[in-house]
Amino acid sequence: MEVFTQSLLDQALALGKLFTKDGKVADYIPELSMQNPHLLGLASYQDGRLLTAGHADIPFTIQSIIKVALYSIVLEHYSMDELRHYVGVQPSAKPFNSVIELELSNKNVPVNPFINAGAIVTVALIHRVYGDRSREVIADRLANLIGRKADYSEKVKASESATAYGNRTLIYLMLSCKILPADLPVEEILDIYFTSCSFLVTCRDLAHFSFVLSNEGKDEDDRPILSRVNAQILRSLMASCGTYDYSGEFALRVGLPAKSGVGGGILTASPDPFGLAVFGPALDKHGNSYAGVRMLEFLSQALNLSIY
Amino acid sequence: MEVFTQSLLDQALALGKLFTKDGKVADYIPELSMQNPHLLGLASYQDGRLLTAGHADIPFTIQSIIKVALYSIVLEHYSMDELRHYVGVQPSAKPFNSVIELELSNKNVPVNPFINAGAIVTVALIHRVYGDRSREVIADRLANLIGRKADYSEKVKASESATAYGNRTLIYLMLSCKILPADLPVEEILDIYFTSCSFLVTCRDLAHFSFVLSNEGKDEDDRPILSRVNAQILRSLMASCGTYDYSGEFALRVGLPAKSGVGGGILTASPDPFGLAVFGPALDKHGNSYAGVRMLEFLSQALNLSIY
Amino acid sequence: MEVFTQSLLDQALALGKLFTKDGKVADYIPELSMQNPHLLGLASYQDGRLLTAGHADIPFTIQSIIKVALYSIVLEHYSMDELRHYVGVQPSAKPFNSVIELELSNKNVPVNPFINAGAIVTVALIHRVYGDRSREVIADRLANLIGRKADYSEKVKASESATAYGNRTLIYLMLSCKILPADLPVEEILDIYFTSCSFLVTCRDLAHFSFVLSNEGKDEDDRPILSRVNAQILRSLMASCGTYDYSGEFALRVGLPAKSGVGGGILTASPDPFGLAVFGPALDKHGNSYAGVRMLEFLSQALNLSIY
Amino acid sequence: MEVFTQSLLDQALALGKLFTKDGKVADYIPELSMQNPHLLGLASYQDGRLLTAGHADIPFTIQSIIKVALYSIVLEHYSMDELRHYVGVQPSAKPFNSVIELELSNKNVPVNPFINAGAIVTVALIHRVYGDRSREVIADRLANLIGRKADYSEKVKASESATAYGNRTLIYLMLSCKILPADLPVEEILDIYFTSCSFLVTCRDLAHFSFVLSNEGKDEDDRPILSRVNAQILRSLMASCGTYDYSGEFALRVGLPAKSGVGGGILTASPDPFGLAVFGPALDKHGNSYAGVRMLEFLSQALNLSIY
Repeated sequence: MEVFTQSLLDQALALGKLFTKDGKVADYIPELSMQNPHLLGLASYQDGRLLTAGHADIPFTIQSIIKVALYSIVLEHYSMDELRHYVGVQPSAKPFNSVIELELSNKNVPVNPFINAGAIVTVALIHRVYGDRSREVIADRLANLIGRKADYSEKVKASESATAYGNRTLIYLMLSCKILPADLPVEEILDIYFTSCSFLVTCRDLAHFSFVLSNEGKDEDDRPILSRVNAQILRSLMASCGTYDYSGEFALRVGLPAKSGVGGGILTASPDPFGLAVFGPALDKHGNSYAGVRMLEFLSQALNLSIY
Repeated sequence: MEVFTQSLLDQALALGKLFTKDGKVADYIPELSMQNPHLLGLASYQDGRLLTAGHADIPFTIQSIIKVALYSIVLEHYSMDELRHYVGVQPSAKPFNSVIELELSNKNVPVNPFINAGAIVTVALIHRVYGDRSREVIADRLANLIGRKADYSEKVKASESATAYGNRTLIYLMLSCKILPADLPVEEILDIYFTSCSFLVTCRDLAHFSFVLSNEGKDEDDRPILSRVNAQILRSLMASCGTYDYSGEFALRVGLPAKSGVGGGILTASPDPFGLAVFGPALDKHGNSYAGVRMLEFLSQALNLSIY
Repeated sequence: MEVFTQSLLDQALALGKLFTKDGKVADYIPELSMQNPHLLGLASYQDGRLLTAGHADIPFTIQSIIKVALYSIVLEHYSMDELRHYVGVQPSAKPFNSVIELELSNKNVPVNPFINAGAIVTVALIHRVYGDRSREVIADRLANLIGRKADYSEKVKASESATAYGNRTLIYLMLSCKILPADLPVEEILDIYFTSCSFLVTCRDLAHFSFVLSNEGKDEDDRPILSRVNAQILRSLMASCGTYDYSGEFALRVGLPAKSGVGGGILTASPDPFGLAVFGPALDKHGNSYAGVRMLEFLSQALNLSIY
Repeated sequence: MEVFTQSLLDQALALGKLFTKDGKVADYIPELSMQNPHLLGLASYQDGRLLTAGHADIPFTIQSIIKVALYSIVLEHYSMDELRHYVGVQPSAKPFNSVIELELSNKNVPVNPFINAGAIVTVALIHRVYGDRSREVIADRLANLIGRKADYSEKVKASESATAYGNRTLIYLMLSCKILPADLPVEEILDIYFTSCSFLVTCRDLAHFSFVLSNEGKDEDDRPILSRVNAQILRSLMASCGTYDYSGEFALRVGLPAKSGVGGGILTASPDPFGLAVFGPALDKHGNSYAGVRMLEFLSQALNLSIY
């Protein structure tokens, strides 16, 4: 089986640095636009050994990567047949914030839990189970997945909340289509969602998260964080929907299940028990770390990581 | 020239009564759904003489008919060239609350001021000029148009406000497309809009309003309420956009500029100086009074009212 | 009542000439793209007197203006209730060749007979009645409307036919949605349609056509060409749909029912018995003669022609 | 590693038989609608041993499964960067024949080669290279993939060709958007496409095809039919786009790259060197064999075949 080495990670980093100038930091959230586009890091976890290169310990906001954790919670409380009425499992050829995709989709159900509309529904489903405790439950789940308690950035959250017109469009469209119940506490749901997206994590954290997904749901101490079945469901969804409308291209280039966030992180997963994550805030036009994808492409070819 | 008579109005009413069962009262606002579907009334104003038949003095909420008054205000503060950047003048083949029409429209500008998205923009433009005084300005304009000060229904307003998911979808979509400015006081704008839609008027009131539109903007005492040019702009828009995606059919059947509301009222206008309005809360699927359209069709043919 | 004079037409022409440079000749049909953009003409017909200015005798292809003649034929063979299943009467905010408008429209029925999809359906309905005689019937109808037998341009027809991808898209989409019957002779229908669009007419011809529409369907010798009712239906449709997605703006500026063609002609109509038409091949982005609209706007204001 | 046994295939067949009544044979092509919905078969190929159960030798038309073979040809003549201008690699949440997906997609390029629009482009690209020899090249490629020369059904081809309104809509839409060149021989391209879809194959054939895809492109005699890289590209695309808008659900249930056809076949692929295919003409609403998916789901769980 493939073995990560410090030398390989260093090579990947060197390659990635050539591409940081080709991406652009997210500018739709003022706070994010101030990130340094040249930050770059990666981390692997295998056979009990963590390797890192570059800025693997610089915290960044988790953003859409949290959608994996959110969906992992609802999988424990609803059957796939129930979930189907609220959110699909189908990849999409539209951007993550598409209103038209939602309006044209089957019965207006968001096509999958990794686009914004689907993640908002996911939070509403968590809130239906846990109510006021939702924030705590999400924070605990993330803590288990990354191996430590994470803080969140008040600044990013406030910044996101202030300009969240697209997300408000989506939540009200779903309310008007009755995908969401009329008595939904809209502001509370959005607040939980924005808080969740603002957790501060590092590459090191995400390598741990990645390992749990790839190790049949168990962490490095063999503690079960996710069920084996749910870990596989998440990997399957990450493979087809994890990098938005770039998922098809990502499958060809990297071939690993993955979930990206506009904070610059990319979390991967695999049916083989290793962890791998990258970070680079300069993004491609789909919202994925530009240099991050290049580093993953290099490692995938070097270690034959593609699942296809 | 055509002359309205009591006998003609009575005949129209008798005909209309055959059709009240074919419509359905609006049910998207709980308060409206309690209306009696068999109410029916009409009123004409000509040569200083008001004629009525049926429930011409029963108050109902003005709903979308207020959009004529709202647009009349912005016409006084912005040139047509300025307005074009915020709201078009183009009829639409889509329903009044269409999100997809907005998303696909030219630069996301609402196609005309009589669909919901366009009316919300109109209120935002009024608020930019008048700020806190907007409610008062709108109430005064309506008072001038109907010839008396109108109250509004707190109940209908509250009911509408509580379920306004579609309108919130539209306003946030326009914010996210930058049609509306980022610092827009969303809740204030919506509150003004819902208040405006909840004014209580009667057929008698709307016959007065209709006369002003048709009398080159002057009321029965020859006081100028609207400029001659703006009255004509409003008539032109009412002709092509006044009854939503039924406007083409309405032009064939009735042939008068008109604006309908889901409260059951229909306001007409004409290049000839008479007033005509009907009321019947049972609606067709486009949101227009079903029996009201039949009464207008009868009168149009009897008196040769079509402008085409 | 308003009276056209030579002096007024000359003024309109002088004004129009200032705008010929602001339009662009149609380029989607190679043969049309070779037209001289500075051609400009107009003609009026009133009280038995024809007035012209500029290039009123230069022939150009009738293009979409023929849709008025085509629809006038089906109105004689189908009731409005029957027609509703094949083509609507609703204005549209989309361009004349929109595929998406058709796919999203109510039951996929073209929204009105003046967009391409609707005109193709109209030809299919004529063909169902007249079969092989359809070309002759259409040519005769046009002859009656313009007062002489018109030839058609083989070159323009061939040019249009060779590049008619958009029209073929529409006809096959309607076949796949079963708006058109499975045994439709597709190439025959398209050939009739392209022939019809290629008739060569002049401003003088269209002033005659305009007079028939405005004179309750009767020509200058009082011969009934159209029924009074059908002439009014055509005027109503021209008012709301005649200049495509510019119809709302045209109603404000000119206020006359009208039908434009990408050959540069604009045919008007009115409830008052006069004829008026313009020609200028340089088009605005909606496909209407740019200078032609300006000349009509001038005449409408000078003679108070608006129907609104 | 997982080992197929006769007993397992028999169990899968017994299970599948419970579900044949839940599907519906394709009815959009008259000739297909006459298939017996209760036919059911499967075949595996592993370690040189072919196992079959049920109707594994009954021929059926290959339909969309041929798209894998078609795309394998263009991969040898164009780089991925060139292909991107003609057809994407992105999964879709829309049905296989969606016009609106095409019109709204990025620059109107079909989102992937496995929807109809994408396959038509693929045929056009083959024709550009091979011209008149295209039919022969495709037949040869299929022969290499299934291990024998296949005939095609004239009846199905004629039936499909006669009712191909949807496919004609797509090809003309792409011509009008200039995705396809103006001088494209439309009828020739469609004829090649319909011929290709009408090849008659069996489960046994598809198990062979599946083995080639999964064995790094080499057949059972170790002859290279596809390059290793292209075999992986095809597996990756089959994973995300192979079962249309059911691909996400299929990934969860079965977890194997696959391509289905409305003839009832499903071809699978895997990074592990075995072949697996099923056949059952009663389809789900997405166009995939209903019982076929259930048999694959059973085998995937029994043998732990999921790649995720």
